[in-house]
Amino acid sequence: MGPHPAVAAIRLAVRRVLHDVLTPTTPSSVPPAPAGHKPLVLVACSGGADSMALASALAFEAPRLGIRAGGVTVDHGLQHGSDLRAAEVASRLAAFDLDPVEALTVNVGRDGGPEAAARDARYAALDAAAERHGAAAVLLGHTRDDQAETVLLGLARGSGTRSLAGMAVTSGVGGRYRRPFLGLDRQTARKACMVQSLPVWDDPHNADPAYTRSRVRHEALPVLEKALGKGVIEALARTAQLSRDDADALDDWAAAVEPSVRDDSGALETAKLYALPPAVRRRVLRRAVISAGSPAGSLFARHIEEVDRLITGWRGQGAINLPGRVAVRRQGGRLVLRQG
Amino acid sequence: MGPHPAVAAIRLAVRRVLHDVLTPTTPSSVPPAPAGHKPLVLVACSGGADSMALASALAFEAPRLGIRAGGVTVDHGLQHGSDLRAAEVASRLAAFDLDPVEALTVNVGRDGGPEAAARDARYAALDAAAERHGAAAVLLGHTRDDQAETVLLGLARGSGTRSLAGMAVTSGVGGRYRRPFLGLDRQTARKACMVQSLPVWDDPHNADPAYTRSRVRHEALPVLEKALGKGVIEALARTAQLSRDDADALDDWAAAVEPSVRDDSGALETAKLYALPPAVRRRVLRRAVISAGSPAGSLFARHIEEVDRLITGWRGQGAINLPGRVAVRRQGGRLVLRQG
Repeated sequence: MGPHPAVAAIRLAVRRVLHDVLTPTTPSSVPPAPAGHKPLVLVACSGGADSMALASALAFEAPRLGIRAGGVTVDHGLQHGSDLRAAEVASRLAAFDLDPVEALTVNVGRDGGPEAAARDARYAALDAAAERHGAAAVLLGHTRDDQAETVLLGLARGSGTRSLAGMAVTSGVGGRYRRPFLGLDRQTARKACMVQSLPVWDDPHNADPAYTRSRVRHEALPVLEKALGKGVIEALARTAQLSRDDADALDDWAAAVEPSVRDDSGALETAKLYALPPAVRRRVLRRAVISAGSPAGSLFARHIEEVDRLITGWRGQGAINLPGRVAVRRQGGRLVLRQG
Repeated sequence: MGPHPAVAAIRLAVRRVLHDVLTPTTPSSVPPAPAGHKPLVLVACSGGADSMALASALAFEAPRLGIRAGGVTVDHGLQHGSDLRAAEVASRLAAFDLDPVEALTVNVGRDGGPEAAARDARYAALDAAAERHGAAAVLLGHTRDDQAETVLLGLARGSGTRSLAGMAVTSGVGGRYRRPFLGLDRQTARKACMVQSLPVWDDPHNADPAYTRSRVRHEALPVLEKALGKGVIEALARTAQLSRDDADALDDWAAAVEPSVRDDSGALETAKLYALPPAVRRRVLRRAVISAGSPAGSLFARHIEEVDRLITGWRGQGAINLPGRVAVRRQGGRLVLRQG
């Protein structure tokens, strides 16, 4: 008798990613393991059902493929007793025979709000751990449900196709981060923990309505499912993939065309910009504004729309002031970008 | 003292569109009005707040711009007394001094479900009325709120960027249909009716939870606003515009590149398709499948993904059967599309 279908599903998802780590289909900047050394794959585990299921599947699959498997858990230090919690998760990872196992303590700052600050601190710690151990990959437990939530959060920003692209299957330096469960629903991960008798921890933050993602998960998505039908999670996840591909293609187009709309001195020529499709023109403008010093994270669709009106709705308006103290003005047939 | 801000807003929105009808910024296939004849603009009016506000603004602005204004209302014959309702709306349009005014009776079929069937019948009647009267444009009362609902409905289909593009400001044969209120919120239209003492009719269908759009309006959007913040309607509407531009650019790219991926006999070459960005390749495949006879409306993202796997995940799979009895198979380095 084979494993429970949920366990089979999580193992298959991990096996596919491990195969790809061994024989990458896309170029990677992660150095190959030295000869005679088995490559190391780490799992990032919060102790929640998704990442516990991931850790169990990695522990099962890695030895069969000649891969070493380790695990890390991050103590954000935001809740009383979080250090004990992290130590407990680490001991569970060690019980899977993962090695190395580490509990990483981070200091969460305040930039960008509590959720973004915690995320930044977490990825910095994971990056450092991956470097320290020379890991070929770090597995993350995000599921299709997390992806759907991310798409809805992106939708609320109203910043277009890129903001709907959700999380990538592969991301980070050299494609270090892998999300094997991005096509798997949360229910399967929970079920896999249950049938393997793995104790899981429900982070109280996940149910705290003070957090936008928690409201999306517990309030918005159930109502959307009721209004639009059961397939809405899958539809959101598919939207992420399609949006990512669309955004990539258009970004490439903008990068390729950008040199041709600059004059000999490198200034952007409005007539040539005008001739571009709006979707490409806005991306060229975004690239130019960022390279003039505007931080990408603070630059919204409405900023670029305003710059675009210097080209499509010119009526002598003054300089457009953008985040990072970048000013854009039109002078004759050129756009002049300056950081003040 | 000027008009109430809501009335000023609806008039400005209509004035902008009428200016564009008089001096089109985009080429139109609607014939210009014969010399000495004023152009005619029709408003499509259900009697609801949005289209009553639109009718009132058209009646006010058109004479000032040398435009004739008429109105039509459609009796879908779906509710008892809908003929009396239509006659009443027509008499209100006539009270605005609109001329001509018509109540159009349509027979709603069943294709594509009740909402789609009613829409098809309605647009067919509006098209016919526009032709009959030689109208330069037909104004429709869709607001930013309707646009947000349309984006959510598109999101639920999970068919990518085009399905998030919502309604166009300008659509139909020769850009006949115009939506002056697409950037205006529903509340403004209601307010404008109230301060002008215009009686409005609330279509009971709009509140009937049997209709998906009604559930989106009354259940999904309020909860999304609660979870994501008040700006969500605006964010969805902006997503529509950005998605439309992105989809247009990528469709153009696919159209431009398609001839170059066909061999001398017109067959699609898999190696050349493989080299395209996924977003462009999928659009080329979609074009090819549609021109082989598959109806665009029945062709979903998952169909195209399956065809795409003949190129990106080739392992000898058999023919892919698509709507409209179109079969796609890979033969050597070519895709063969055939309608059976």
